[in-house]
Amino acid sequence: MTIPEPILNGDTADFYFHNTRRVLAQENLDPSVTMEIFPSRAGILCGMREALELLNQVLPNDAQVWHLDEGAAMDTKEVVLRIRARYSAFGLYETALLGMLASESGWATAAHRIVEAAKPISVISFGARHVHPNVSAQLEYAAIIGGCATAATPAGARLAGKKPSGTMPHAMILIFGDTVRAVEAFDKWMPPDVSRIALVDTFRDEAEEAVRVATALGDLLWGVRLDTPSERGRVTPDLIKEVRARLDLAGFPHVKIFVSGGVDLERVEIFKRANAPIDGYGVGSAISAAPPIDFTGDLKEIDGKPIAKRGRIPGITPNPRLKEWTRNS
Amino acid sequence: MTIPEPILNGDTADFYFHNTRRVLAQENLDPSVTMEIFPSRAGILCGMREALELLNQVLPNDAQVWHLDEGAAMDTKEVVLRIRARYSAFGLYETALLGMLASESGWATAAHRIVEAAKPISVISFGARHVHPNVSAQLEYAAIIGGCATAATPAGARLAGKKPSGTMPHAMILIFGDTVRAVEAFDKWMPPDVSRIALVDTFRDEAEEAVRVATALGDLLWGVRLDTPSERGRVTPDLIKEVRARLDLAGFPHVKIFVSGGVDLERVEIFKRANAPIDGYGVGSAISAAPPIDFTGDLKEIDGKPIAKRGRIPGITPNPRLKEWTRNS
Amino acid sequence: MTIPEPILNGDTADFYFHNTRRVLAQENLDPSVTMEIFPSRAGILCGMREALELLNQVLPNDAQVWHLDEGAAMDTKEVVLRIRARYSAFGLYETALLGMLASESGWATAAHRIVEAAKPISVISFGARHVHPNVSAQLEYAAIIGGCATAATPAGARLAGKKPSGTMPHAMILIFGDTVRAVEAFDKWMPPDVSRIALVDTFRDEAEEAVRVATALGDLLWGVRLDTPSERGRVTPDLIKEVRARLDLAGFPHVKIFVSGGVDLERVEIFKRANAPIDGYGVGSAISAAPPIDFTGDLKEIDGKPIAKRGRIPGITPNPRLKEWTRNS
Amino acid sequence: MTIPEPILNGDTADFYFHNTRRVLAQENLDPSVTMEIFPSRAGILCGMREALELLNQVLPNDAQVWHLDEGAAMDTKEVVLRIRARYSAFGLYETALLGMLASESGWATAAHRIVEAAKPISVISFGARHVHPNVSAQLEYAAIIGGCATAATPAGARLAGKKPSGTMPHAMILIFGDTVRAVEAFDKWMPPDVSRIALVDTFRDEAEEAVRVATALGDLLWGVRLDTPSERGRVTPDLIKEVRARLDLAGFPHVKIFVSGGVDLERVEIFKRANAPIDGYGVGSAISAAPPIDFTGDLKEIDGKPIAKRGRIPGITPNPRLKEWTRNS
Amino acid sequence: MTIPEPILNGDTADFYFHNTRRVLAQENLDPSVTMEIFPSRAGILCGMREALELLNQVLPNDAQVWHLDEGAAMDTKEVVLRIRARYSAFGLYETALLGMLASESGWATAAHRIVEAAKPISVISFGARHVHPNVSAQLEYAAIIGGCATAATPAGARLAGKKPSGTMPHAMILIFGDTVRAVEAFDKWMPPDVSRIALVDTFRDEAEEAVRVATALGDLLWGVRLDTPSERGRVTPDLIKEVRARLDLAGFPHVKIFVSGGVDLERVEIFKRANAPIDGYGVGSAISAAPPIDFTGDLKEIDGKPIAKRGRIPGITPNPRLKEWTRNS
Amino acid sequence: MTIPEPILNGDTADFYFHNTRRVLAQENLDPSVTMEIFPSRAGILCGMREALELLNQVLPNDAQVWHLDEGAAMDTKEVVLRIRARYSAFGLYETALLGMLASESGWATAAHRIVEAAKPISVISFGARHVHPNVSAQLEYAAIIGGCATAATPAGARLAGKKPSGTMPHAMILIFGDTVRAVEAFDKWMPPDVSRIALVDTFRDEAEEAVRVATALGDLLWGVRLDTPSERGRVTPDLIKEVRARLDLAGFPHVKIFVSGGVDLERVEIFKRANAPIDGYGVGSAISAAPPIDFTGDLKEIDGKPIAKRGRIPGITPNPRLKEWTRNS
Repeated sequence: MTIPEPILNGDTADFYFHNTRRVLAQENLDPSVTMEIFPSRAGILCGMREALELLNQVLPNDAQVWHLDEGAAMDTKEVVLRIRARYSAFGLYETALLGMLASESGWATAAHRIVEAAKPISVISFGARHVHPNVSAQLEYAAIIGGCATAATPAGARLAGKKPSGTMPHAMILIFGDTVRAVEAFDKWMPPDVSRIALVDTFRDEAEEAVRVATALGDLLWGVRLDTPSERGRVTPDLIKEVRARLDLAGFPHVKIFVSGGVDLERVEIFKRANAPIDGYGVGSAISAAPPIDFTGDLKEIDGKPIAKRGRIPGITPNPRLKEWTRNS
Repeated sequence: MTIPEPILNGDTADFYFHNTRRVLAQENLDPSVTMEIFPSRAGILCGMREALELLNQVLPNDAQVWHLDEGAAMDTKEVVLRIRARYSAFGLYETALLGMLASESGWATAAHRIVEAAKPISVISFGARHVHPNVSAQLEYAAIIGGCATAATPAGARLAGKKPSGTMPHAMILIFGDTVRAVEAFDKWMPPDVSRIALVDTFRDEAEEAVRVATALGDLLWGVRLDTPSERGRVTPDLIKEVRARLDLAGFPHVKIFVSGGVDLERVEIFKRANAPIDGYGVGSAISAAPPIDFTGDLKEIDGKPIAKRGRIPGITPNPRLKEWTRNS
Repeated sequence: MTIPEPILNGDTADFYFHNTRRVLAQENLDPSVTMEIFPSRAGILCGMREALELLNQVLPNDAQVWHLDEGAAMDTKEVVLRIRARYSAFGLYETALLGMLASESGWATAAHRIVEAAKPISVISFGARHVHPNVSAQLEYAAIIGGCATAATPAGARLAGKKPSGTMPHAMILIFGDTVRAVEAFDKWMPPDVSRIALVDTFRDEAEEAVRVATALGDLLWGVRLDTPSERGRVTPDLIKEVRARLDLAGFPHVKIFVSGGVDLERVEIFKRANAPIDGYGVGSAISAAPPIDFTGDLKEIDGKPIAKRGRIPGITPNPRLKEWTRNS
Repeated sequence: MTIPEPILNGDTADFYFHNTRRVLAQENLDPSVTMEIFPSRAGILCGMREALELLNQVLPNDAQVWHLDEGAAMDTKEVVLRIRARYSAFGLYETALLGMLASESGWATAAHRIVEAAKPISVISFGARHVHPNVSAQLEYAAIIGGCATAATPAGARLAGKKPSGTMPHAMILIFGDTVRAVEAFDKWMPPDVSRIALVDTFRDEAEEAVRVATALGDLLWGVRLDTPSERGRVTPDLIKEVRARLDLAGFPHVKIFVSGGVDLERVEIFKRANAPIDGYGVGSAISAAPPIDFTGDLKEIDGKPIAKRGRIPGITPNPRLKEWTRNS
Repeated sequence: MTIPEPILNGDTADFYFHNTRRVLAQENLDPSVTMEIFPSRAGILCGMREALELLNQVLPNDAQVWHLDEGAAMDTKEVVLRIRARYSAFGLYETALLGMLASESGWATAAHRIVEAAKPISVISFGARHVHPNVSAQLEYAAIIGGCATAATPAGARLAGKKPSGTMPHAMILIFGDTVRAVEAFDKWMPPDVSRIALVDTFRDEAEEAVRVATALGDLLWGVRLDTPSERGRVTPDLIKEVRARLDLAGFPHVKIFVSGGVDLERVEIFKRANAPIDGYGVGSAISAAPPIDFTGDLKEIDGKPIAKRGRIPGITPNPRLKEWTRNS
Repeated sequence: MTIPEPILNGDTADFYFHNTRRVLAQENLDPSVTMEIFPSRAGILCGMREALELLNQVLPNDAQVWHLDEGAAMDTKEVVLRIRARYSAFGLYETALLGMLASESGWATAAHRIVEAAKPISVISFGARHVHPNVSAQLEYAAIIGGCATAATPAGARLAGKKPSGTMPHAMILIFGDTVRAVEAFDKWMPPDVSRIALVDTFRDEAEEAVRVATALGDLLWGVRLDTPSERGRVTPDLIKEVRARLDLAGFPHVKIFVSGGVDLERVEIFKRANAPIDGYGVGSAISAAPPIDFTGDLKEIDGKPIAKRGRIPGITPNPRLKEWTRNS
């Protein structure tokens, strides 16, 4: 993981940290300080891997760092990162460190919640299209840290050491003009390790189309994907049960059912209570729209003396869960 | 604005678009298609500048594009972008196009709301620290498109053609050990075009500290910033009025009051109703935590014939507000 | 309209009226009394026609009756019927009179509300199946008094002087095994004055099936009926608009759209706000499940003297809207 | 129980079943079908006795019927009746079958709830006056199936094999001009097996009147009925307790207290929590105003093959609670 | 109005004012100070008359006082009293001054609201029994300042320059054993200037008893009082209308109706909407249970210099409504 | 405890008791009666000591009294006081007896609730300034009966056999112009048995000022009082924790923290959940603004015979908790 140049050169830093660097330098002030970073609410910590990589590149050898691990559960206001070094060594990077933790922890926490609710049904992150492509890989990485099985883009899946998932969009079926034709072409040209999952809501009723593609591909068909739009009433427990029943009745009990389209915590609970026979979920906005978890960085010691601004407790906050960081080089 | 390589090479694209490209190529299918892109809810359109830049780099000369302008108000499900071209020319970029529009429109819309509420008091975007540094510049650009006066990072302000704002953080004052000392050093070393705005809640009561720094800098002091933490009751209308009164009583009616810290729509309404004498706002999470506005791309014509998946109306959606794009090359 | 024997012989009367008849007869008490009948809440008065028919059969010639007309708007506790006669002449019929007014006014009032909301789109009562067949004709009569265009059973429509409405049920299409086949057979064998309305949600997606039946019958097709079940998301404004658009695109702008299935006040408002292109409604439970409007009968004069039980004002209640009844002997 | 002619001749059937009969006959289509009937919500099944009687009159000998028993608890969407026969044998009666079950199950369910709440105090159905006299007997029968001790009309009580209940109305007391006089006449002329229950809220305060009638009739008085109107504050727990206390104090502990007038689930709970000394309830609107429970009939097999319209599972729905019907002739 | 000794000698003062007096005396500190007193919420100012009487007794001649008048409407935090004097002259009386204003303004404000709602029907304060007798006169005085016509105790009415109101309690009627007997004795022995108002809910139904007492006293009866307890459903609009109707029907249109028992704002609104024919109200708890309006006293000048504790604006608060006090001696 | 003359002479009695006395005397009616007094809602009984003192002064020797003890928990409508005597002996005092119980029980009940919630932290009543000085001693007495440790005025504390509490007001600190100067003077001149508790929110931030006064007085300082106004965000758990931490860090772990200012049940719960390190509470309005608990007096026997007005049960209400009163002659 390389840290982009605009981060390293302070171009993404809040301007007042530039002012501070200038004034302190003129005044020859560069005390050893201890900064503590903590979140505004509880969740799953994510972004720490990237934050430590940034610190690795900028901190001198005598700096000390304590931290929680990537993916750890963290409590409201729990200190997750403590840095002790000359202020000039890292003051400029506060903006970037907080931002990495904020976005990624926000996404990981939302993913964690929906993965826990969906258990034991697996969840794949489909939200890349809902965030700027500069951070879509971080979104997907965070979703996987939060428990998703994998994600939809090569960049995101690679960041988490996974293979990307995804078979066919509505566009492809529309271009073929018929779902069965599209599925047959897909089966013909795709490598055998790609699962054959047919999207069955493009032209006809889902139950009818599911039986048609199962009849066409037989044992080669891994599953069908239901993505019914709100204009057709979304995917409901009854729809899933009926598709399952009609597939079984037609002799295709092996064909799995994968559900996407507006899947969120509330929908997962509805499916669960109804015992809907689902084999996998694709989740988009419910993860991508998660608000960041704001983090704060506080100076708590200067030259070894406890200090704090009004409203905060001076001195180190005890947290036995923190472990000291060993530089990776 | 350059488009990063991982976007251009499809690394951030949903994997099923790679599959689609492969299968269609094998089948020699590459019709002319018309795609329409529309938002899931109303707001301020942002990200269009970047989306058009991406299309500029990838579309052939005979492609046609219609669009709304950056910063335009858009309605729920209103078509904001229509692309007519061979599918192979742009199918792979659907993920990136939607993502740019989603994140930036989400932020611009939130900024617009708070700027409208705060009028005529100006608002500066302070939220860079709450999002990943890979998109903090886009956040600040979008906030300015939404109406903010400027933003806090060099990268973000530059993207919008502005100068960054920001004077001093709590860390600087803590290192100096006294607000007046910090403010005097700031005044000594910073260029004259930087406004002297003193942060007055670090060590002492805000009203007391405000009078102290005003006494120290006199006419040189442009203003004070109130950023009272929740542990001290946040910034309230009564606090602002009292600081104003004590500054006036001490002979400093020229010193302005700038308010930050948890400022959101609700707080702005409270300040407004109370006629709190505020000269400027700094807004963070209320913009940075705005959820993206999800966009959808639908194929509506193939080789000139109206088509649509179930749930959508086949054919072009009339929208007289769209204007045809002239390539900037 | 004939009054059934169990009503005339008191078999449906509350038993205490039999006791009263017995005791008063033994005591030779049979004063002239004035009874006033009023509803517990406002609504559309219905059942008066039948009530007057009953009174016509039982009251002596010197009895006096005042009443509001069938279908009149009535206010809470407004006197709608006043009877002055020997108590022995009608005391036994209080139960039946109140019951006729209660059930029929309840249905007429509910029908009136939905008809007003749906205007100018016409409404047909489809609720016979949701009430006991002994009163389904009264339900349909009351729905028509409340404003419905007609109703679904021969008995009900006849009572209101209308022709019954209805084309084909799901059962018929299932027996034919295909919607187009069923519609073609319907067209072949039904008299020309029966509108050809195809039910299009039995086997396939509604939009697809609508175009298929329109293609099969052409100008002979009057309309399609959408009755989508909740398992498929009910009938939504978007579905109606899409069916309209696909019919128009396929060259069948003359085919009307008739909507049924769970239509109630809330749904009608949703369709209205969305400008859904609907040509007719079929309404069942929203009328048939309306609670009766309870009526009360109070003695207010005995032998010309004002009287009342505790809680009521003694004597005649002035109501200039009442008109005296002329016997249709 | 005889089935009225308008039901048997299809006059109360939805018109589209007439159309269906006509078209199928012309097409010589008359498959063996299986129809399943199920309710839209849980409750107490009622109307089955009458439905089976109708089927008994119309089905051929080789038809098969499975059903739950009258009075059984049924679950939402549980199949309560399954009919296998030529479609022509019963298709026309779907409207009547559903309607019988709908109205009667609605009333029985409401009665069941209030009887359960009131236990061990018995409940008598007083609601005949709030429904059309054509179904008041069915209402009372259903109320008794739901658990009521008996009902108020001769027709209704007879249908359920009970004796009707009821002593004297306000009208009788008003005609006598004094409660004690009315009660004495009642006692003089009524057969000894009719309970002497005095209505005590017509002219004077209930507590005062209760002691007066008890003094007049002594041991012959079975009880008093409290029916206080809303204008006098309805019957309250405190009123009941005071009447009890004043009767006891005056030496009439044997006189029972029967409560009527707006008694519903909420009131019963209030009386229960207050330990009001009640010996019996009369319940009207809380049963008669219960909405019908809508039932649906679905074809699930045609000529032995599973089938269903979109939204339903094809084939027989397993329900081990169903038992096969033995024709009663 | 004499100020009780425990107030004058500081026995009712908060103890820390005694400490303050002691310490300041030892330090020879006795500056001229300006104190401003303001309420925590808006209402009707009451207690000022008594507060000024206290100040009259303790302030030296050179002290200055500004104030709003007794009974004035006051706004939230509006200064209602400003005192400028040596601190030693009045510091000890802050507790008493605030307390007088708090209790009396609370009651006057509640009275004002109900009087406004009841207009043009007059209201009499009946709440003395719900507060300690040491302040029942102040309660009644405040109720009259708030708009009540008079009150129920000699002490309270006298304080406000009125004659007390009240005729007979339930106890008196119970001792006589019959309402008519009690009313006749009352009429026989009370002076002619006392209105004959009969309480009519003690033994019998109100409507019955009202006609009985009217028949007994004829033109001598001024009115009846309805005070129905909650056990009998309270006084309702229907009860009032019926009593009015039965009195009129019996030839007593001159007899007025006075309502008491749980009368509060909500009840008054109910009576008003129902056009209940009421001639007077007696109000108890709705006034007596009003919470005090807390007042605060702030030092705003010391020896002529603006000052204030944190949270308050230093210096005199402009209020043109204040008028300077002229000593009454 | 002496009973004031206006109570003894009936000046504070409802006027209709004067009427009753006059009429009964003229009629020579003076039966032995039994009155029962009960509250409208549950709570802590207070005012009984004073009520018995009044009865002691007015009842003849042969009167009988039963009562619950001062401070007892009482239930809704539980009889707390029963008096059997000639009516002339105490009829006039009903108003005063009910009023004493009403006000004092209201305050004691509110105090009890907050004391229970605050346990084991002690509570001092600070509400004297919010009620009229004629009853401020009764308020404080009742608060102590409800569980408060002591109260703020000499009169109130004395009534309950306690020493008053309270150190210094804002006024004293403002006059000294500096908190440390004021505290030093207080320490110099106050007797050693008065706790040195410094009010630390007048001029500077509470945390800063707390350390300043602790540094000035050292071991002599018993504690600090936090009374932060709403304009500065009130006293919050975080503020208390920070003051505690900064005192400890500066070497003053012995200094206690006392909290006042808007403390109510909700605030106490917030402090408790947050484990705020509080050593004592001062509570004002949460006790002083408690509404009185209305009491009612009913005649239940006259000359030994059970009686009651309509709505009440005639005769003695059994209550084994009542104990007979022994005159303290």
